[in-house]
Amino acid sequence: MGRRGSGLRAEVIAVGTELVQGLTTDTNSSWISSRLAAIGIPTDFHTTVADDVADLEQAVRQAVSRSGLVVVSGGLGPTADDITREALARAAGRKLVLHQPSLDIIRERFARWGREMSENNRSQALLPEGASVVPNAHGTAPGFALEIAGAQVFALPGPPHELRAMMDDNLVTRLKRMQTESAVLRLRRIHCFGPGESQVDQKIRHLMIPGRNPAVGLLVSNYVITVKIAVQAASETQADGLIAGTEREVRELLGDIVFGADGETLADAVAGELLKRGLTIAVAESCTGGLIAKLLTDVPGISGSFLAGVVSYSNDAKREILKVPEDVLRTDGAVSESVARAMAEGVRERTRADVAIGVTGIAGPTGATPEKPVGLVYIALADTKHTQVRECRFHGSRERIRVRSALAALDAVRRWAMSFPV
Amino acid sequence: MGRRGSGLRAEVIAVGTELVQGLTTDTNSSWISSRLAAIGIPTDFHTTVADDVADLEQAVRQAVSRSGLVVVSGGLGPTADDITREALARAAGRKLVLHQPSLDIIRERFARWGREMSENNRSQALLPEGASVVPNAHGTAPGFALEIAGAQVFALPGPPHELRAMMDDNLVTRLKRMQTESAVLRLRRIHCFGPGESQVDQKIRHLMIPGRNPAVGLLVSNYVITVKIAVQAASETQADGLIAGTEREVRELLGDIVFGADGETLADAVAGELLKRGLTIAVAESCTGGLIAKLLTDVPGISGSFLAGVVSYSNDAKREILKVPEDVLRTDGAVSESVARAMAEGVRERTRADVAIGVTGIAGPTGATPEKPVGLVYIALADTKHTQVRECRFHGSRERIRVRSALAALDAVRRWAMSFPV
Repeated sequence: MGRRGSGLRAEVIAVGTELVQGLTTDTNSSWISSRLAAIGIPTDFHTTVADDVADLEQAVRQAVSRSGLVVVSGGLGPTADDITREALARAAGRKLVLHQPSLDIIRERFARWGREMSENNRSQALLPEGASVVPNAHGTAPGFALEIAGAQVFALPGPPHELRAMMDDNLVTRLKRMQTESAVLRLRRIHCFGPGESQVDQKIRHLMIPGRNPAVGLLVSNYVITVKIAVQAASETQADGLIAGTEREVRELLGDIVFGADGETLADAVAGELLKRGLTIAVAESCTGGLIAKLLTDVPGISGSFLAGVVSYSNDAKREILKVPEDVLRTDGAVSESVARAMAEGVRERTRADVAIGVTGIAGPTGATPEKPVGLVYIALADTKHTQVRECRFHGSRERIRVRSALAALDAVRRWAMSFPV
Repeated sequence: MGRRGSGLRAEVIAVGTELVQGLTTDTNSSWISSRLAAIGIPTDFHTTVADDVADLEQAVRQAVSRSGLVVVSGGLGPTADDITREALARAAGRKLVLHQPSLDIIRERFARWGREMSENNRSQALLPEGASVVPNAHGTAPGFALEIAGAQVFALPGPPHELRAMMDDNLVTRLKRMQTESAVLRLRRIHCFGPGESQVDQKIRHLMIPGRNPAVGLLVSNYVITVKIAVQAASETQADGLIAGTEREVRELLGDIVFGADGETLADAVAGELLKRGLTIAVAESCTGGLIAKLLTDVPGISGSFLAGVVSYSNDAKREILKVPEDVLRTDGAVSESVARAMAEGVRERTRADVAIGVTGIAGPTGATPEKPVGLVYIALADTKHTQVRECRFHGSRERIRVRSALAALDAVRRWAMSFPV
C-alpha cells in the first residue's frame, strides 16, 4: 500500500477459465475500475485467473500485499468450478461457514420461481468466517467483503447485471466511507471525433507535460479521441476547480470537434442536440446495414426524434422504398454520390423528417471494382433546403469501415443540428 | 512451467493505464488466448498493468517464472508513456539498442504518408539486445521476441488490427514450431440458442464428469450457451477423433438448438441457412431499432439474401412505409401482436422477400404501461403462406432486451429456413 502515495489504490481480479482461454472477454474488470475511478480510487492491476483454487489464492495474496482494495469478480456460482469462496477463505486463513440468512434468501428465491433448490445451491450460502454479506438483488449468489492482510477484499458474482447493481447499490457507498479527504483523485474525459490523433496532440501538447496537475493525456479508441484530465487534490472542491480550469482550456483549443464527456457516446450527443431543438431525423443505410439506426436507438428517449430507418440493401429496396430513380442506379451504380443523395432525400420525403442521412459504400471484403475500392463510402445529409454529400475513403476490415462510416454520419448530423439555435 | 503438465502454457500481459483505469476494455488478451487455444496452447493468467516500467517488469518476471510463453500487448508507441521496450529489456537484463532495419522501415512509411518523422518515432526502432523482430505491416511499431529466463516472450503493439495481423502472419507459425507433438490440446465449441442453461446442463450432465477426456463444460454468454469440448491427446489425429466422437454425442443430445461451432454467430448461421437455399429476407424493426439488420449485415456476402430492413420507430413510419393499418395501431397499440404481424407482412409485401420478420416491443426504461410492461416483445415471422407471432417477456436492461429480442428473431428465421430442403 502507498506505493504511489497515500490514497487508497485498487486492483481487480476476474475469475474464470473461459476468460483466460479467450472464450469470453472480461468486461467486468474494466467496468469496476471505471466506477472506482469515478469516486477517486485508481486501479493499478487487473489479473485474470482460471477456475483454480491455488491460482486464485496466489493472486489474492499478491494483490493484498500491494493494494488496499481488491475486488474479485466471478466464481460464486453453485458448481464445483466456482472456487472463489474457497480461495478467499484460504488466502484469509479462515474456514467456510454456512450463512443462514443467505441460505434462507436462496431458498425463498427458488420457491418464488417454483423451482427445486439443488444441493449445489447450498454452497452459495457458504462464506469465509467473519465476512460480511453484499446482497445480490438479481441472482442467487450473495457477494461478500472481508479483510485480508489489512486490505479490503470484495467478492462479487460474474454476471455483469448482478455485479453492476451490487457495486452501485452497496460497494460505492462503503468505499466512499473508506476514503480519506486528504487525497481526492478525479478524472474527467473529453471526447472528440473528426481529426486524427496527431492533430489533437498538436493542439494540446503544451498541456501534456509530466508532473502537471491536472495531468492531461490522450487516448484513441474506436475512432473517438479522448482527452483525459486527471487531478489530485486535498478536497473535492479543489479537485473540481482544477479540473474545470483545464477542461475550459482544452475545450477552447479543440473547439467543435468535442462532442461529449465522461463516457457519452456520439449517438448520445446527436440525440441530445436533436431533442433539445425538437428536430426529427430519419436514416437510409446501405453499407452500414442498420448500424446508424441501432446506435441512435441505443439512446433511451430517442423516439422523440428518430422517426424511421430504411436499410436499403438491394437495389429494389432503394428504388421502391426510397424512390431512388432507376436510371441513377443504372448509370452511376449503387455506390455513388447521386444514390447517397437520392437515399437521403427519399427517406426524408417519406418521413417528413427535419434531417435525413443516406449512406452507401463498399464495406468489403467483396464487392469492390477498380474504380470503387473497398472503403469508398458516400455520406449524404438532406434537410428541407439542401443536400450535401461527402465522399470518404476508409480503411480496414468490414467492421471498421462500417463503424467509421456510421460515426462520420452521426457527426455530420451533430454539426448540422448545432447550426440551429436551441 | 509444467505446473499443469508437460505442454507449453501461456500467459498474456496487457499494458496501458487506460486499461487498468477502466477507460477502455482490453480485448487483446482474450483474442490472443483464443488464438493460442486454437493451436493447442492454454492460457493460465491475464495481467493488465499501467504504463509503469516497474509494474510491467515485475509482471513479466512473475510470468516467465511460471509459464513458458508470455505475450505482451501495448506500450510500443512513440511516446514517453510507451514503456514496454524498456521494461522487457530490464526484465531480460539487457540494454536497448537501435535496430537499423526497423528505423529504415519507419522512415520509409512516414515518407510514403508524406509526413515528417518525429524524433519520438525513432524510439520505436529500439529493441532489447538479442531480440528478433516481428514485422508490423499495418503500423510503425515493430513487435519483437526474446527469451527471458527460459520463457519465450513476445511483445506486440496494442492497436487490435496491427496485433491481430502480426499474430496470424507470424506468431502462430513460430508457436506451432515450439510445440511438441506429445501434448496436443484441442478445443471445440458447440453453440446453442433457445432453452435455459439448466435444460442444456440436464441433457449433457453425464458427460461433464471430472477427469473425462475430452472434458465437457458449459458456458453462457449473451444468451448463447456454449458446450466446450477440450481434449488432450498424443497426436492431432487422435485429438480430432476424440473430439468428433464427443461432438456427435453432444449434437444428438441437444438436437436443433445447436446452431454453430467455434465462434460462429447466430447471424452467421441464419445467413448460411438462407443463402444455401436461395431464400431472401427482409426485416421490420421497432424496439430493436436496426439491430437485427445490423447483425445480419455483419455477415459478408449477406447481400445475396438480405433485401431490406425498415426501422419503423414512429407510428407514421409503420403506417406509411409498412402499411400497418391506422385502426390496428389505434385499437391495439404499437406494441401488439397485430402490429408485429402487420409489420412483417408489410415489409414482406414491399420487398417480395421469401420471409420477413416484424418486431415490436418495449425495451424500456420508459414507455411501459400497467398492461404492457418493459420487456414485452412481439416477434412475427411471415412467409408467402402464413404469419406466426410469438409473445415474449424478457428481462433486464434496455440493451439486454434489445439483444435478446434480436437473437430470438434470428433463431426463428433459422428454424423456419431449416424446414425447407437444401
